[in-house]
Amino acid sequence: MQAKPTLHTVLSPQLLHLYNLNDAVVVIIDVFRATSTIATALYNGAEKVIPVDSVEKCIQLGQQTGGITAGERDGKVIPGLAYGNSPAEYPRSFIEGKTLVLTTTNGTRLLHMALNSGAAEIVTGSFPNLSAVCDYLAGQKRNVILGCSAWKDRFNLEDTLFAGAVISRIADAFTIHCDSSLMASDLYRLHRSDMQSLIRKTTHWHRLASYGLEKDLEYCVTPDLANILPLYRNGDLIKG
Amino acid sequence: MQAKPTLHTVLSPQLLHLYNLNDAVVVIIDVFRATSTIATALYNGAEKVIPVDSVEKCIQLGQQTGGITAGERDGKVIPGLAYGNSPAEYPRSFIEGKTLVLTTTNGTRLLHMALNSGAAEIVTGSFPNLSAVCDYLAGQKRNVILGCSAWKDRFNLEDTLFAGAVISRIADAFTIHCDSSLMASDLYRLHRSDMQSLIRKTTHWHRLASYGLEKDLEYCVTPDLANILPLYRNGDLIKG
Repeated sequence: MQAKPTLHTVLSPQLLHLYNLNDAVVVIIDVFRATSTIATALYNGAEKVIPVDSVEKCIQLGQQTGGITAGERDGKVIPGLAYGNSPAEYPRSFIEGKTLVLTTTNGTRLLHMALNSGAAEIVTGSFPNLSAVCDYLAGQKRNVILGCSAWKDRFNLEDTLFAGAVISRIADAFTIHCDSSLMASDLYRLHRSDMQSLIRKTTHWHRLASYGLEKDLEYCVTPDLANILPLYRNGDLIKG
Repeated sequence: MQAKPTLHTVLSPQLLHLYNLNDAVVVIIDVFRATSTIATALYNGAEKVIPVDSVEKCIQLGQQTGGITAGERDGKVIPGLAYGNSPAEYPRSFIEGKTLVLTTTNGTRLLHMALNSGAAEIVTGSFPNLSAVCDYLAGQKRNVILGCSAWKDRFNLEDTLFAGAVISRIADAFTIHCDSSLMASDLYRLHRSDMQSLIRKTTHWHRLASYGLEKDLEYCVTPDLANILPLYRNGDLIKG
């Protein structure tokens, strides 16, 4: 019998180098809100999402591709960009067939780190595409890294909660010797029946709710509302 | 009314630089087994424990101080040293009045990092001295950093569990905007009634139990069996 592939959860980009990403599938997790918005835009027909780590690159790629530039700081659209980070801004009637150039900090940086560490495949995950991520991982027969984007490298609850949700569904297909994964599973088990209460305790909720983003955050922890797989290919995230 | 001091939990030495240690009390946590052994040796009358990060320094300081040299690799006493890392090796009949020079990797490195980051006080904590640590922290009126030593920088469950135990007792005296602390509290709440089962799931248990150290590990998660406060002073840990 062939050994099962391994699964590890990485709680912060600062810890990524401790793990072997070679030939692994890496899931980039940035629940509030980058990877929720990416899933939503692609689900609603965006041709692709280009994740970038600076406003300058966002503007430049927007001009080159004719894409929609998007990014926020402190709950407001960044000057020079056209739209924000909210999944609610990208319904089918608006985004279908278009390119979204999205500037994010935590998630994009982790994605680039994974890219430089030999990952075989990179996908993005959040609750709106939970099932698509789980189905994909279970079918790949490769080692898996669940990469939490965290907040300025500090551990966050919402990304870990998503890692726990994934593990709760696919654990049987993997060998898991990883305390972070055990903790994530426990956290999800404890809060799965009332995630809306948990997110109100997170530091990220306190940062964003003051900008009136409660509905966004509730959406971001609701499973399968945008159930597709964003797959990284040559700088773009496309529907897998 | 004066603002309450803050409390943060640091899940790995790799994340320590993200936090402000200036004027803070830092608790070094290395449940399996360094900080459990340190509490035990001091409780049983050791004059001091000198934590060192290499075998060479251990031997050198052992010669200079006439102290007992101690350290393990893979469950065996390191060649050139006299004793191991087990708290069971340091009963009063043996350790009283003596100096213990203890080489550890994860915990000692974190202690030195804290020392270089402006910490006001450094103490060590584990379940055998849980109450002493909590009483001390509650009385200090300073910001607190609960520093998990982790395992080669990877998150571990047992150190986080101890952070959660501390928080469960002293949370009311602090302002806690820290997802790591909320998670640690949840983890402790979930497992407090059966910690002996949880530790059997940890990666560290699987590493150490194969060396026949189950009794050691059970001791290390039992509260208040060596209830003193190890306080760092000029290179030594002494009874506070």
